[in-house]
Amino acid sequence: MRFALAEAKQAAAEGETPIGAALVIDNTVVASAHNMRETWQDPTAHAECILLRQAAVKLGRWRLPDATIYVTMEPCLMCAGALVLARIGRLVYGCRDERAGALGSVYDVVRDGKLNHVYRITPGVLESESRHLLQCFFEELRTSRTANRGMEKPGPKIHNPN
Amino acid sequence: MRFALAEAKQAAAEGETPIGAALVIDNTVVASAHNMRETWQDPTAHAECILLRQAAVKLGRWRLPDATIYVTMEPCLMCAGALVLARIGRLVYGCRDERAGALGSVYDVVRDGKLNHVYRITPGVLESESRHLLQCFFEELRTSRTANRGMEKPGPKIHNPN
Repeated sequence: MRFALAEAKQAAAEGETPIGAALVIDNTVVASAHNMRETWQDPTAHAECILLRQAAVKLGRWRLPDATIYVTMEPCLMCAGALVLARIGRLVYGCRDERAGALGSVYDVVRDGKLNHVYRITPGVLESESRHLLQCFFEELRTSRTANRGMEKPGPKIHNPN
Repeated sequence: MRFALAEAKQAAAEGETPIGAALVIDNTVVASAHNMRETWQDPTAHAECILLRQAAVKLGRWRLPDATIYVTMEPCLMCAGALVLARIGRLVYGCRDERAGALGSVYDVVRDGKLNHVYRITPGVLESESRHLLQCFFEELRTSRTANRGMEKPGPKIHNPN
């Protein structure tokens, strides 16, 4: 999870929503990635999807049942679905995403047993650090936007854009 | 939808599950794509996700509210989620996917109103042609696998690998 957190910090440094992920097989980090949506202008460029693509290319296979994915925030619907498609073995995540999380918050798409693959889910690992990164990022964004408006009026409430 | 069907046929010719997609803005086809999972060994390489990435790169933006996506089969959870993230305006699809479809079959993740974006959905366009392509593909796959086993025993029931 420390690799995932380091990726999340790197994302923030690049102006991306600070969410990072790492893929581990046999105690070895095979790949790590962070959000790249703004940089690439790609709506699918979430950390988990980039990570799966990187790992699959590296390993030469799309089925990853031996993989454990660490990600700093609960995956959205797209990413939770991608992890099912990749047949991963286990997912570990940091903080919940009450607005769009698909593994317990808004949906619960693995534990509901509706799809053809199930992976183990461990929530809440390095939860406060993961959430703190996001909170700081959005706080700075709000401050920056308010400053850019010359303090004429308060900025809008900014939601996590994922 | 004819562009999407042509892509699906191309997928079959390449040994990929025949699902194709096209993205249209102002009556112009901006991008078209088909499944590439086996060729790329990439679990995220569904037609819709590849399409969104292509279009976003071409247009230089990840928000696509003016886009209509045509796809030959009902999107899975990953793709339905990706289309929400891209804020598309409308989705038109051919046949249903009773096993993994996320827009009415197994889930109904846009019409349930749980996410922050809703797109219009038009099902059943060129439905029989879209389904026929898939049926032929899997029938041929079964025949080919049975032949490869020297007709010793019947091949397993092959499901749509998406």
